[in-house]
Amino acid sequence: EAKKEKPVKPDYTPAQKKRITTLLSPADDLSSIKELPTFKELETELVKKRKQDLRQMYEDDRRHQLAQLERDISLFLIEKGFMEVRTSVLIPAKFIERMGITEEDPLYKQIFRVDENTCLRPMLAPGLYNYLHNFDNIMPDPLKIFEIGTCYRKESDGKEHLEEFTMVNFCQMGSGCTKENLLNIIDDLLKYLNIDYEVISDNCMVYGDTIDIMHGDMEISSAVVGPIPQDLDWGVTKPWMGAGMGIERLLKVKHKYTNIKRSSRSISYYNGITTNLR
Amino acid sequence: EAKKEKPVKPDYTPAQKKRITTLLSPADDLSSIKELPTFKELETELVKKRKQDLRQMYEDDRRHQLAQLERDISLFLIEKGFMEVRTSVLIPAKFIERMGITEEDPLYKQIFRVDENTCLRPMLAPGLYNYLHNFDNIMPDPLKIFEIGTCYRKESDGKEHLEEFTMVNFCQMGSGCTKENLLNIIDDLLKYLNIDYEVISDNCMVYGDTIDIMHGDMEISSAVVGPIPQDLDWGVTKPWMGAGMGIERLLKVKHKYTNIKRSSRSISYYNGITTNLR
Ligand SMILES: Nc1ncnc2c1ncn2[C@@H]1O[C@H](COP(=O)(O)OP(=O)(O)OP(=O)(O)O)[C@@H](O)[C@H]1O
Ligand SMILES: Nc1ncnc2c1ncn2[C@@H]1O[C@H](COP(=O)(O)OP(=O)(O)OP(=O)(O)O)[C@@H](O)[C@H]1O
Ligand SMILES: [Mg+2]
Ligand SMILES: [Mg+2]
Ligand SMILES: [Mg+2]
Ligand SMILES: [Mg+2]
Repeated sequence: EAKKEKPVKPDYTPAQKKRITTLLSPADDLSSIKELPTFKELETELVKKRKQDLRQMYEDDRRHQLAQLERDISLFLIEKGFMEVRTSVLIPAKFIERMGITEEDPLYKQIFRVDENTCLRPMLAPGLYNYLHNFDNIMPDPLKIFEIGTCYRKESDGKEHLEEFTMVNFCQMGSGCTKENLLNIIDDLLKYLNIDYEVISDNCMVYGDTIDIMHGDMEISSAVVGPIPQDLDWGVTKPWMGAGMGIERLLKVKHKYTNIKRSSRSISYYNGITTNLR
Repeated sequence: EAKKEKPVKPDYTPAQKKRITTLLSPADDLSSIKELPTFKELETELVKKRKQDLRQMYEDDRRHQLAQLERDISLFLIEKGFMEVRTSVLIPAKFIERMGITEEDPLYKQIFRVDENTCLRPMLAPGLYNYLHNFDNIMPDPLKIFEIGTCYRKESDGKEHLEEFTMVNFCQMGSGCTKENLLNIIDDLLKYLNIDYEVISDNCMVYGDTIDIMHGDMEISSAVVGPIPQDLDWGVTKPWMGAGMGIERLLKVKHKYTNIKRSSRSISYYNGITTNLR
């Protein structure tokens, strides 16, 4: 028996390999094919399959994966007693300072600035801090809130980073803010989403010690048990805990996408399928 | 009998009047009170009522009105056969040109620019045009898609304009693209949302003749029956129709808010209630 054939034969040009990679879906398994067809044959077949996938989505479902996962996570957290908030994406630049993000922090250079006093939020924490302060002593203890929304960061290209991505950030203030309880909520959520993970410790300039939730080599969440010094700058004086999680990364894991672009808001991919099929 | 008392007595200072207005909810009716209490008494009472409102939301519901309306409209349109898409908010500046928006167009000056080649989308049309082109001849006829997402426009302050707002834009391409069918979809949606409206005609620089859907003096939607000349610049060659609608305006009508800020993504209002209650 001959050795197992490589998925993409060396007689495809680099541009052809790229096109084939774009057309593949995680369910395709070229490794089982002993002899690969010509580029044109393979492309035609894959284009046909992807068009069928899209048509099936149009006829059977019509929901966008990212939008649906946002809805699922929202309803899951509301059910668990967290209150849904929505704050603006355009934030005062002074919120960045108040988060303790100084010029030395790597995040500082990642921020999109719209004008001198305004930027696109790189995280949901500033809005949540405002709600923790404003709702303190109004709501029963503990106060549990969350936001799902877009965040922006300048990133050097990569398979796990988007410049526009969607974060879910939930937090609790008052009683019960222990590492154990925090890990339990994360465990419930990731079990509900059917996503395996490992817990490791990390050190982050903004929050000090963070708990990182990993899927293989990819971070899917960073979690913090407060209090931390900058709480006072937000008028937050009680213990708290919270975690931020990237929704497109969750989709990348769930659907075994090779690149996070497949799960992003995009005109190039629809539910993980390339839209370049004409 | 004395004449009916004015809602806010002249012995409140302007700042006090403003505070009372902020604390009022649409359900409050000061006009029935014959003698208004002192500012301090009234403020204390209204703060107490608003805290109760928030606590009740926290205990009974916990959903954010804007997020919930987005979910409701999404599921309504999916049910009606429209496919949900998600495209990015950061768009190439050339998409603005390709929309036919020139320096003379009032919209031109309203655009937030992030850098020389990138801006925050002021509308959902560019993303939808891309999908109409990419999905043409792949999906069965007619092609029906929609997006719900944030748009940005520089606005001079007003009770109906936000700089960051949420649009729903649905469109159909291929057969059935008549004014009658378009008005029927809008009617179904606004009946489902229980919102009264009137149809008028308008002329818009971007789309030529548009059909405007009004609630009193406020535009809640602009609708267009294509084709229009710039379709060709997007590779769109079939008849189409579509409408864009502001979700915060729908909430403003539904909850009788006096200012659209109450329904916006905000740290100042939660579900129409001021968060400044401490
Ligand atoms: N550029 C990005 N694209 C997609 N998701 C992201 C991005 N940056 C952060 N996230 C997600 O948001 C979560 C919380 O944000 P956090 O600030 O901890 O990210 P991070 O530590 O900078 O992540 P990384 O080290 O991978 O850059 C991350 O765990 C990840 O899931
Ligand atoms: N700044 C804004 N804040 C909130 N909603 C908006 C804003 N601009 C537009 N919308 C909503 O989006 C819909 C479609 O956008 P369109 O471009 O037709 O608005 P427009 O004609 O500029 O509205 P207006 O004349 O009120 O400024 C509008 O009918 C409205 O419901
Ligand atoms: Mg990072
Ligand atoms: Mg992290
Ligand atoms: Mg306008
Ligand atoms: Mg209009």
